[in-house]
Amino acid sequence: MRTRIFKDLFQARQAAGLIACVGLDPDPRKMPHHMRIHGDESPATEHQIVQFLLDIVDASHDIVGTYKPNDKFYLKYPGVACKLIEYIKMVAPDVAIILDAKYADIGNTNAQAADFAYDYLGADAVTIHPPHGEMAMRPFLDREDKGVFVVCRTSNPGADEFQLLTIKESNLPLYLHIAQRVSGWWNTKGNCGIVVGGTCPTQEIQRAREVLGDHMPILMPGFGSQGGQLMQSLGAGFDMNGGNVLPVNASAIIHATQGTDYAQAARRALQQFNRDIFDAREFHRAQTGG
Amino acid sequence: MRTRIFKDLFQARQAAGLIACVGLDPDPRKMPHHMRIHGDESPATEHQIVQFLLDIVDASHDIVGTYKPNDKFYLKYPGVACKLIEYIKMVAPDVAIILDAKYADIGNTNAQAADFAYDYLGADAVTIHPPHGEMAMRPFLDREDKGVFVVCRTSNPGADEFQLLTIKESNLPLYLHIAQRVSGWWNTKGNCGIVVGGTCPTQEIQRAREVLGDHMPILMPGFGSQGGQLMQSLGAGFDMNGGNVLPVNASAIIHATQGTDYAQAARRALQQFNRDIFDAREFHRAQTGG
Repeated sequence: MRTRIFKDLFQARQAAGLIACVGLDPDPRKMPHHMRIHGDESPATEHQIVQFLLDIVDASHDIVGTYKPNDKFYLKYPGVACKLIEYIKMVAPDVAIILDAKYADIGNTNAQAADFAYDYLGADAVTIHPPHGEMAMRPFLDREDKGVFVVCRTSNPGADEFQLLTIKESNLPLYLHIAQRVSGWWNTKGNCGIVVGGTCPTQEIQRAREVLGDHMPILMPGFGSQGGQLMQSLGAGFDMNGGNVLPVNASAIIHATQGTDYAQAARRALQQFNRDIFDAREFHRAQTGG
Repeated sequence: MRTRIFKDLFQARQAAGLIACVGLDPDPRKMPHHMRIHGDESPATEHQIVQFLLDIVDASHDIVGTYKPNDKFYLKYPGVACKLIEYIKMVAPDVAIILDAKYADIGNTNAQAADFAYDYLGADAVTIHPPHGEMAMRPFLDREDKGVFVVCRTSNPGADEFQLLTIKESNLPLYLHIAQRVSGWWNTKGNCGIVVGGTCPTQEIQRAREVLGDHMPILMPGFGSQGGQLMQSLGAGFDMNGGNVLPVNASAIIHATQGTDYAQAARRALQQFNRDIFDAREFHRAQTGG
């Protein structure tokens, strides 16, 4: 088996026009009705969650850019995450898998997490929070074949409490100060990206892209149920070639319906998301003359 | 069974003079030699890790303040964390358990994590990172019976990259700005504390205590193998009653030896840690005239 390089995988996919990142976050409360054998209030079983996820992968892997399982939806069942990632690699070996774990601890603890994410689960990339500083995050950053997305600006209400505070030393808002450190200092292996929410004001996304230049990807959650505006946010985040953004849509795709046709519904929702991305890309190209 | 209230548990224990927090972070590379059946390079099995941890608990629960398992050492085996916590509650129902998970995500993802930590594992408290802001962290903060420690200042080399940056709006270093928000705004249920590393300069710990006042606990990792100076750091962190600090020692206790007498060695190391804490407390009392 050839070595999987995160950057190569996701860039080849982007070049083929497939840039949607599907969040694989199975919410027990939103699972299809018929999977809850004890009624709608009962959570699905581990076996049913696996079946659900593999069905979603079957229905989406030919038109997806990357997959992003959030580890908090697999805490009780790491075996489910294992099976999911193994299955994706089997049916869609060209699709990279980003484990959205938001790791952040001291070095020797991060080494445990990197071992779990990269070597046990087999993920191609992770998300991390930066507060421990670059040195502590080296167990993630030093893996050249893997991708590392550093959280800068998040998509949730109330995220500005700290992220928009001004740093005296740089005169930048905290999220941009972090982006600058990652871009200018942390990215020694060329494997870093940042996370900027798609619900953020256009100008904030634009400033993040300016700090990064054209060579680093932005993972952009917040589309679908969180309400991010695709046209504006992608336009602001794209590099000069209309790429290097990974727009994330999770529950509006995988939980598009609670009926038995959840897999087909997920595919239809992803097709629509792809069309909206395509339009945003065309619009961006027309504007930039690319 | 009566309801477990984190605050009551840890305060009763502190009043009894037991304030050491033992980090239960079983490092596969430091496990006792005889547990690695395929030689020293092979990791211990799940069954052996459980046995190891229960032995450590047996040898320490009567002289410990709180236990702090770090979830990154249990990622492959959530069942081990379950068994560990269940066992602690059985043999030492007065000892609170802090799950050091450093959770940090949007609200609905945090709800999944809170369900796992509090209701599935049965932990009494968690650690969280603050960047998503108060609103997103409500699934943790709103549980009055549970404790929430917000990471402000960490014990690792390189932690000052962001934590000591000056916030223009408050003219405070970032870690103190966070402490002020938590103390003044987040702590509506009276269940919050903060994390400040025991390796930090005395003055930084003192300033954190000043911001908190006398009613909030400081979880203080960094003693033992990380080299924090107990006398100075506890003296700076104590409230006016010589309490409300949870000094953490992990690997220097549980991995005190790789011989078969690891449980007795752990007890001896904890006894010494307790004596050092006692001395620091006496010194603090003499200084403050308490």
